[in-house]
Amino acid sequence: MIQKLATSEYELHDILKQRWSPRAFSNDAIRPDILWSVLEAARWSPSGGNQQPWRFIVTQKGEEAYENLLGILTGNNLKWAGQAPVLILTVAKLVSDSGRPNRHAYYDLGQAVAHLTVQAGVHGVYVHQMGGYDQDKARELFDVPEGFDTVTVLALGYGGDVTSLPEDLQERELLPRVRKPFAEFVYADKFGTPLQLDVTAPDSTGIR
Amino acid sequence: MIQKLATSEYELHDILKQRWSPRAFSNDAIRPDILWSVLEAARWSPSGGNQQPWRFIVTQKGEEAYENLLGILTGNNLKWAGQAPVLILTVAKLVSDSGRPNRHAYYDLGQAVAHLTVQAGVHGVYVHQMGGYDQDKARELFDVPEGFDTVTVLALGYGGDVTSLPEDLQERELLPRVRKPFAEFVYADKFGTPLQLDVTAPDSTGIR
Repeated sequence: MIQKLATSEYELHDILKQRWSPRAFSNDAIRPDILWSVLEAARWSPSGGNQQPWRFIVTQKGEEAYENLLGILTGNNLKWAGQAPVLILTVAKLVSDSGRPNRHAYYDLGQAVAHLTVQAGVHGVYVHQMGGYDQDKARELFDVPEGFDTVTVLALGYGGDVTSLPEDLQERELLPRVRKPFAEFVYADKFGTPLQLDVTAPDSTGIR
Repeated sequence: MIQKLATSEYELHDILKQRWSPRAFSNDAIRPDILWSVLEAARWSPSGGNQQPWRFIVTQKGEEAYENLLGILTGNNLKWAGQAPVLILTVAKLVSDSGRPNRHAYYDLGQAVAHLTVQAGVHGVYVHQMGGYDQDKARELFDVPEGFDTVTVLALGYGGDVTSLPEDLQERELLPRVRKPFAEFVYADKFGTPLQLDVTAPDSTGIR
């Protein structure tokens, strides 16, 4: 399996450093206890008013539901996602229990998926999230009711052989991970003003 | 500091198990290298098309920006958030670089905050996310431009003494963490059909 460590400037936990979104997956299935473990992580994620506005439709290779979900992916996703043993359709509940629109539904779902991804990393399982799929067909195929949005499809599995991918994707698979510099997204005082914060001696008084 | 471990049925990494959202924070400041470390975790979070649609306005106790952010919190948040040494306003970029609406902006921001929270846990720093604040005032105070939404305010700090809180909040601080049962949010085949998946022996052929 290719390692694509985050080239972080500051301390980053190994699970976060090693996480990336591969396209090559092995044929190995994911054990049920491990699948429940990653869903457990999503379950204990925080959410506004503890509304837990996340739903997961879990499909495994060999099931009709898996084939259905695979079939509505678009673009490059179609070329590789069928290698993954598990595909999950994520769903956000748009209205809170009080009946008011929940403007944090997508945000909270994203957090739950991130927690799931971290726990997957504990087990050596990789997660590749996809936004490219047919939303209307997803709603129809999986009976997703009004008041809920399908949001992403997650591919889960163990790392595979990059040569199992079509050539154009092999190239992409080997590209380094890149991110914006801090100055472009971490601000102080006002939007757009980069945070200036020197890393000083760790033993300053009153600071730990 | 009160421990409020997740009462998980399946394996859950200690960082996720120990994470919760306290209201009591100690007076200790957060060291700059630790603050950068948690922002680094947000930075390396995944996002649709690697758009990284997250922005963070970081304020620290003693700064005018901190007082401004504290002042626009609503409800109970006003009673406790001023104990935290760091308050961060999170912002989502609603339009992708191609100029099209990014429907995963909130979702990706949520993931970045979750990664930040996990890295905070590595350092023993707690994060309490708030949705209750005045959005219009936030935009005005921090010059947040059109095309961006402010989404949450994060309080970061070390655990504090529960008796430092007003009495009604002391009670809430001691309540156990609760979550929906799996059957209410993990489905198979169709929306609403609980996933049935027995935890079988870990040594089944072809499964690891």
